[in-house]
Order: sequence, then structure tokens, then C-alpha cells
Amino acid sequence: MLSDRDLQTRRETAETMLRDAGREALAACLSRDFTVEAKGHQDFVTAIDRRTEDRLRAALARAFPQDAVLGEEGGGAPGPVTWILDPIDGTANFLRGFPYWCLSAGLVADGDPVMGVIYDPCRDELFSAHRGGGATLNGARMRVAETGGIDRATFGLGFSFRTPAQQHAAVIGEILQMGGTYRMPGAGALTLAHLAAGRLDGFWEASIHPWDVAAGLAILAEAGGIATPYGRQSGWRAPAPLLALTPAMAQALAGGLPRDAVWSVPLQQLQSG
Amino acid sequence: MLSDRDLQTRRETAETMLRDAGREALAACLSRDFTVEAKGHQDFVTAIDRRTEDRLRAALARAFPQDAVLGEEGGGAPGPVTWILDPIDGTANFLRGFPYWCLSAGLVADGDPVMGVIYDPCRDELFSAHRGGGATLNGARMRVAETGGIDRATFGLGFSFRTPAQQHAAVIGEILQMGGTYRMPGAGALTLAHLAAGRLDGFWEASIHPWDVAAGLAILAEAGGIATPYGRQSGWRAPAPLLALTPAMAQALAGGLPRDAVWSVPLQQLQSG
Repeated sequence: MLSDRDLQTRRETAETMLRDAGREALAACLSRDFTVEAKGHQDFVTAIDRRTEDRLRAALARAFPQDAVLGEEGGGAPGPVTWILDPIDGTANFLRGFPYWCLSAGLVADGDPVMGVIYDPCRDELFSAHRGGGATLNGARMRVAETGGIDRATFGLGFSFRTPAQQHAAVIGEILQMGGTYRMPGAGALTLAHLAAGRLDGFWEASIHPWDVAAGLAILAEAGGIATPYGRQSGWRAPAPLLALTPAMAQALAGGLPRDAVWSVPLQQLQSG
Repeated sequence: MLSDRDLQTRRETAETMLRDAGREALAACLSRDFTVEAKGHQDFVTAIDRRTEDRLRAALARAFPQDAVLGEEGGGAPGPVTWILDPIDGTANFLRGFPYWCLSAGLVADGDPVMGVIYDPCRDELFSAHRGGGATLNGARMRVAETGGIDRATFGLGFSFRTPAQQHAAVIGEILQMGGTYRMPGAGALTLAHLAAGRLDGFWEASIHPWDVAAGLAILAEAGGIATPYGRQSGWRAPAPLLALTPAMAQALAGGLPRDAVWSVPLQQLQSG
């Protein structure tokens, strides 16, 4: 069982290591000097992803040798206390220079996300939280938005080719039909951070990896947001669906979402979770 | 008829005025200290939009009193030489703090976009071009991407509630079915600038305003991109569809797009335009 002080120490370490590694990754992004490989369809990895993850792993091995580490590029197995790392979330954006990507480090203890830090080097924005310690953006307290009407709401979306294209398109149709709008910026962790910061009202992805989610959910919970119980079934070992919302938007959708909507099942999990 | 020197002078003026006004708008965005009004469904204007446009108009009236000015907030009528201004493109993002918005100033002469400057204050990126003078990003030459396969391509999209939700969702389904992916970041002018900078392979919006397009098309043309003949029919007075592509992606789509696809009509206009 981690104490508040244990969490605080890990949060501070994560903040420092993500800022440092993020500045280096940004310099590499701007120089366009790196190799790229395809891991799967529209799924890429660069030498910078690997180098950044190695760097984060080395920092964690020094500071917290007893903690387990699971990373997008280097793998690993969960333990009682596990760091879940995405050295660069939004690699496809990173390698094209499209400025929406981040570094993400979450901590999962006994299955729950309890600490998270997300750093956006392009804008020097650091999103950070630990359980009971509040959520901050560059040190200032942050909270989810209070938008009450779906017709004034903006939802963040993610997409993976693991899931049917038509299901994704159908969700967009449903959002627009209800008068809401959406953003698809291409980096799930940063989109969750922006939801936590009040810049969006919800997030949906039909299949998202643990390393895109761990930090974001810890931050979102401290900022007042709610989400479907990600990771409980899979043990943080496999991609799963994620619906995350502000409380105001969860309430609005409970009354406004058609019964046969793609989101109606996740919405019920949210209410019972 | 404007000489190269006339265009160059206007470009330099636009660069300076957008950088200055953009920095002030960013400070206002971060301070969250402004009023917001709804102009239409999911269509907003803030006091900062109006103040920024007033500031740009004043600078242009001093420097080029003979030029016509048409702006999103203040209106105006086109003349033989017309500045088309969007003081803040992506106002919905701006007012939520979602960091994807820009200032845009384009120049249209005899119906054609001949000069454009787009400034992204969140990342201090200035995209700029004039006809025959090349396109630059923060002073360095830029070119469109050479991505050859649709299954490695990323398309930027825009959406307006003036058009059917299901048509928009259908385009997304078609892109994903072909193995391409998409971004919907919420500011058309900046998305066009990112296409010109090689960060995306195409852009589509079923109905986009002249002030979101004028600067972007001038920059895109100088960066080697192509687009449907926007503005010729409407005289830059009304929203119209826009498909813009890299030459490589235009070629790939000509061979790969299903005949009944939503994009097939604009794609033919592109080829004949």
C-alpha cells in the first residue's frame, strides 16, 4: 500500500523525467532526424520512442527499483505497483511534425490508476495528479468542465484499426445528430489530459492500449471526471474500450442518448462503475 | 495588377501584424478573461475575436488604404484586391483552451488567392507565402508531403452544422475503409497550413467560409499542393466545399476512390481545375 508521500515522491520524479525527456524528444521532432518503422497498419515507432522509453526506464530503475515497469515499446509485466509508460503517445503525429503528441507515465497500484503525469512538449504543458492530491496543469489546480448541454459539448475521439471503421463513423454521426461536436487529434493520452483540463467534455475510443490510459485516468479522476472501469478485466495487459466523461455530460447523455446508440452500453457501465 | 514587390510588402506587413496580434490573443486565452457569445449552433465569438480583427483592420487601413478588407466578424465587400481576415480561426477551441487555433490573413486579387499568412500563437509557428515567392514556416522553405499510399495517408477534416452529419460521417468511413486515417482538430485555416507543411496529405470540408480558406490556399499553392477551385463561383462571398490535396495523394485517390464515394465529385473538379 502506497502512502501519500510514496505517491507524491513518484509524481515529482515523473514530472522531472517527463519534462527532461520531452524537451529532448521535441528537439528530435523539430530536427526530423530519426528512423521510422511500421509496427502495424498506420502504427509506427521511431528511434526516439525507443530512446525515450529507455531513458524513462533507467530513471525509474534508479529511483524505484522495486516497482514494476510496463512500456509501449519495451513491454513488461504488471506487479502490485506498476509504472505504465508511453514514451511518445501520438507517434504518427510526432513523425509528421503534427503538433499533438505527449509523454505519459501512469502508476497502477492493486489494479487502480493512482498517479499520472502527461507532458506536452510542443506547448510546455505538464498535467499531473495523484490520488487524493489533486490535479494540476503547470502547477495550477485544474477541474473538468461543467458544460451541461450535449448541443454545446465537444467530445474527443480516438480510433484504432483493431475496430470496425463503420462503428467509429457511426459514433461521429450520433454525436453530430445530437448537436454535439468532436475532435480527433490523434493522441489518446493528451486528449484525456485535455478532458481533465476542461477543454473537452468526453472521450471515446473503442480499443485503447493501457499505456494511453493509465496516466490520463489518474489525472481525470482527480480533476473530477468519471470513466468506464478500464483495466479491471484485462489486468492492464490488453487494449479495451474507454468512455470518459465529465459528470455533467454523463448526466446529459443518460437522458439524451438514443437507446440503440453505440455508446449506450459503455454509458451504463459508467453509471454502474 | 500587383507586382512581386507589392505582394512581398503585404506579406511582411501581414507577418508582423499577425505575430503581434497573436501574442496578445494568446495572453487573453491563457488568462480566460473574455466574454463569449453564440453566433449560431456550436458557432461562437469572443470579445478577443472582435478586438483582434479591429486591430488588424487598423493596421491595414494605415498601410494599404486602397485595399478592400473582408473579415469574419466585421464583414465587408470584396474589391479588385481584397484582404480576407479571420482574427481567430478555431474560436471554439480558443475559448475552451484547446490549443489548436490561429490567425489568418489572405489576399485575393482578381479572384485568386495570391498571398497568405497564418500564425499559430500556441506554438509560435508562422506559415507564409506569396505567389511566386515560395512558402515558408518560420522563415524556412516548406513543401507538401510525398506520401504515396492512401493506407499511409492522414487527411485533415472540418465540419459545419450547415451540412448533413451523415455525409461527414460517411467520408470518415470511406477514409478508414481505404486504410487512411484522419484528424479533426477544429480550425480549418491551421489544418490547411499543416497540409502545406507536409504534416497531412489532404483536407476536406463540405462547407467552409472564405476567411478560413483564403490564406491557406495561397500558402498551399506555393508549397506544391492543389485544391478545388474555391471562390470562383461564389466570388469569396459565401461558404463552399473545399478538397485540397498533395499531388501524390490526388494521384492515389484518382485510382483508389470508389466511384460512388462522397469525394468523387470534388476529386474530378480538382483534376479539371
